[in-house]
Amino acid sequence: MAMSAATTQSFLLNNKTTRQNYQTLKSATHIAAFPSTHVHSTTTLTSTYKSMSISCSAAATTTTTPLQTPPSTSSDRVFNFAAGPATLPENVLQKAQADLVNWRGSGMSVMEMSHRGKEFLSIIQKAESDLRTLLNISDEYAVLFLQGGATTQFAAIPLNICSPDDAVDYIVTGSWGDKAYKEAAKYSKPNVIWSGKSEKYTKIPNFDSLVQNPDAKYLHICANETIHGVEFKNYPTPLNEKTILVADMSSNFCSKPVDVSKFGIIYAGAQKNVGPSGVTIVIIRKDLIGNAQESTPVMLDYKIHAENNSLYNTPPCYGIYMCGLVFEDLLDQGGLVEVEKKNQKKAQILYDAIDSSNGFYRCPVEKSVRSLMNVPFTLAKPELEAEFVKTAAGEKMVQLKGHRSVGGMRASIYNAMPLAGVEKLVTFMKEFQAKHG
Amino acid sequence: MAMSAATTQSFLLNNKTTRQNYQTLKSATHIAAFPSTHVHSTTTLTSTYKSMSISCSAAATTTTTPLQTPPSTSSDRVFNFAAGPATLPENVLQKAQADLVNWRGSGMSVMEMSHRGKEFLSIIQKAESDLRTLLNISDEYAVLFLQGGATTQFAAIPLNICSPDDAVDYIVTGSWGDKAYKEAAKYSKPNVIWSGKSEKYTKIPNFDSLVQNPDAKYLHICANETIHGVEFKNYPTPLNEKTILVADMSSNFCSKPVDVSKFGIIYAGAQKNVGPSGVTIVIIRKDLIGNAQESTPVMLDYKIHAENNSLYNTPPCYGIYMCGLVFEDLLDQGGLVEVEKKNQKKAQILYDAIDSSNGFYRCPVEKSVRSLMNVPFTLAKPELEAEFVKTAAGEKMVQLKGHRSVGGMRASIYNAMPLAGVEKLVTFMKEFQAKHG
Repeated sequence: MAMSAATTQSFLLNNKTTRQNYQTLKSATHIAAFPSTHVHSTTTLTSTYKSMSISCSAAATTTTTPLQTPPSTSSDRVFNFAAGPATLPENVLQKAQADLVNWRGSGMSVMEMSHRGKEFLSIIQKAESDLRTLLNISDEYAVLFLQGGATTQFAAIPLNICSPDDAVDYIVTGSWGDKAYKEAAKYSKPNVIWSGKSEKYTKIPNFDSLVQNPDAKYLHICANETIHGVEFKNYPTPLNEKTILVADMSSNFCSKPVDVSKFGIIYAGAQKNVGPSGVTIVIIRKDLIGNAQESTPVMLDYKIHAENNSLYNTPPCYGIYMCGLVFEDLLDQGGLVEVEKKNQKKAQILYDAIDSSNGFYRCPVEKSVRSLMNVPFTLAKPELEAEFVKTAAGEKMVQLKGHRSVGGMRASIYNAMPLAGVEKLVTFMKEFQAKHG
Repeated sequence: MAMSAATTQSFLLNNKTTRQNYQTLKSATHIAAFPSTHVHSTTTLTSTYKSMSISCSAAATTTTTPLQTPPSTSSDRVFNFAAGPATLPENVLQKAQADLVNWRGSGMSVMEMSHRGKEFLSIIQKAESDLRTLLNISDEYAVLFLQGGATTQFAAIPLNICSPDDAVDYIVTGSWGDKAYKEAAKYSKPNVIWSGKSEKYTKIPNFDSLVQNPDAKYLHICANETIHGVEFKNYPTPLNEKTILVADMSSNFCSKPVDVSKFGIIYAGAQKNVGPSGVTIVIIRKDLIGNAQESTPVMLDYKIHAENNSLYNTPPCYGIYMCGLVFEDLLDQGGLVEVEKKNQKKAQILYDAIDSSNGFYRCPVEKSVRSLMNVPFTLAKPELEAEFVKTAAGEKMVQLKGHRSVGGMRASIYNAMPLAGVEKLVTFMKEFQAKHG
């Protein structure tokens, strides 16, 4: 991705067409002062102009009356507690919307760009650079933008790191860790050194009690279990210097600062905190690249992707673009230290509401390892759960049903869930309890 | 994907929010009659309203004056001849833009939707249904929406169809067929039964002269070679009934009618004719599913995806949505018979311009097998090629440089390239020749 900084800069700063669109529309439009609460609104009009002849003399005579409801406002949107794909920052979606047909004067959508053209190179280059800034990733690590989800990495990791007879250790704190372990058995000799299954995946082990294999090529964890809501608050240290720590961070990626240097590989599907589905991010120490098993599909070989800057074949360009917009937004918020504070506050008021409900709501997860991202809870009266989910949806709080494997409810409160969404949910929970408690 | 037709229908027809947005904007906007030439235009305004106070009394007094340049018109866009990702239908992009922040009153972007929610199920279900209609795909075939590009399928096909010792036949008519063959050697015993390499990949073999292996599990072709511009106009019949025909149709998928029943597997990356990059479509005869080699990564096992209706893990939701919009557009055009006619016309005027240039322009491909999609050509004076590409770009015709492996120029004229784009290119070619010939 050799591209001059000046060229990149010109694409990143040149928002000429959007400005022009705005100027043109401004001159044809009669818009009174909007209240300052509508800071993030976007106006979109799609229409067939063919038979359109509109004259709004009423509007023309009321220039001093503020519009109470500009089109496509925040109020039209729901609070979406889905576990992933999940809610995205509204301002990011609005930027994407403005540039969808014609990105920054390029005359084309990002979806139409050659992945080898200067426009897209500027996009992927900036996305990588911003991610490196966010997580303070050193040059010792490669950052890859891939496809296939974390599930593809469940195979890629042993294929790239192990010979078929190599031992590897798995700590299984939930369904995703278990799936990763099972897939690894095709390409290595994995061993589960701790499982939370018998306690319904509500705990993280005491690291001192772990019996690690000194010959293991890696120690695998799932940093946050999306379904069960358990999250590592710190990380185990492999027994042996040659053993690397590998983490699936799909559902808490970029939700807080992480010391990348402690890991050999971090991987994550984008569709929780950083973008739409279809992009998988792999951060891998460069010295680990280049030893894939012979039978590794070329698309699962990290060497191929690292040597080609994630452009060996056509990458998921639009998804990478969206991740880039999210990374910009996270930096604008002050980086991951600030993001974590917001996430802690949101999680705290939700867990507090659960814990102070006198058992009306219950979260089964051990308090010290409760996830900041996925908050599972049940009702003491399970027969009310369907009504809870349905009534909440009627009040524009959707996707609160728990995963089919565990039941109950689950509120996923990723980076992009506004505090207002959690506050509304907590208010709703109290009202629901008052009515049914 | 069990979903009632009524539910699907309500999502597909309910465009309430877009209508509301339009109504609201209409009442606040002062727009005179647009000329009928602006049928497909979209108006987008993004702004920070905080400090905005606009009063357009001039516009208010000119209600009868047509706006000559509505914002974000077609004229702002370039003609993009990229080989993929490639140009998409402008009306499809405009639909996506209108619904990007809030899809059809759902209160969320398609990018934010749970892949198991009723909204996204309605989208993927309709995309599959429309594709089945377009290509007349029978129930004997599964349609899968996957990730990883055709390159991932290069491995998946032998992994799913063969034992490691099984023989398979490859006809290699270009770089992509060659890559497919090389990847297959990891999981089967492939044999190249014909290669066009010595003739620089400008031909398709005479089928009668092929020496097929009677024990081959499949016969593989690349239906259209994107780099070299050679296209199968009909298809070879495998020697043995047990041998299936497998085709990579990445760069001519949905560009013309195809008799799917002749194939065991058809696969295609979406990013040429039917959508953005990041979606791979596999059409596979159902009886071929379920025999993957033990070492097959779970994400490359067709059985997993078929049993889960492409929802085993999180699919590339937004890309599938975009493909669905393109399928609708192709049906609106009258289906693939009509689409092929348009493609034939576009290709004809471009090849005619080359062939009637008295050698100023040259296309190396044998006339009977020239691609309707990718038109490679060279200049008799190669020193002018850089100027050709640069000058064309200055006139809003971009991405005309040939693939780095073959040089010269290449005009990719997929479904979404308007006739006007090819006409403009041909006019430019004649002017360029007049100036330099």
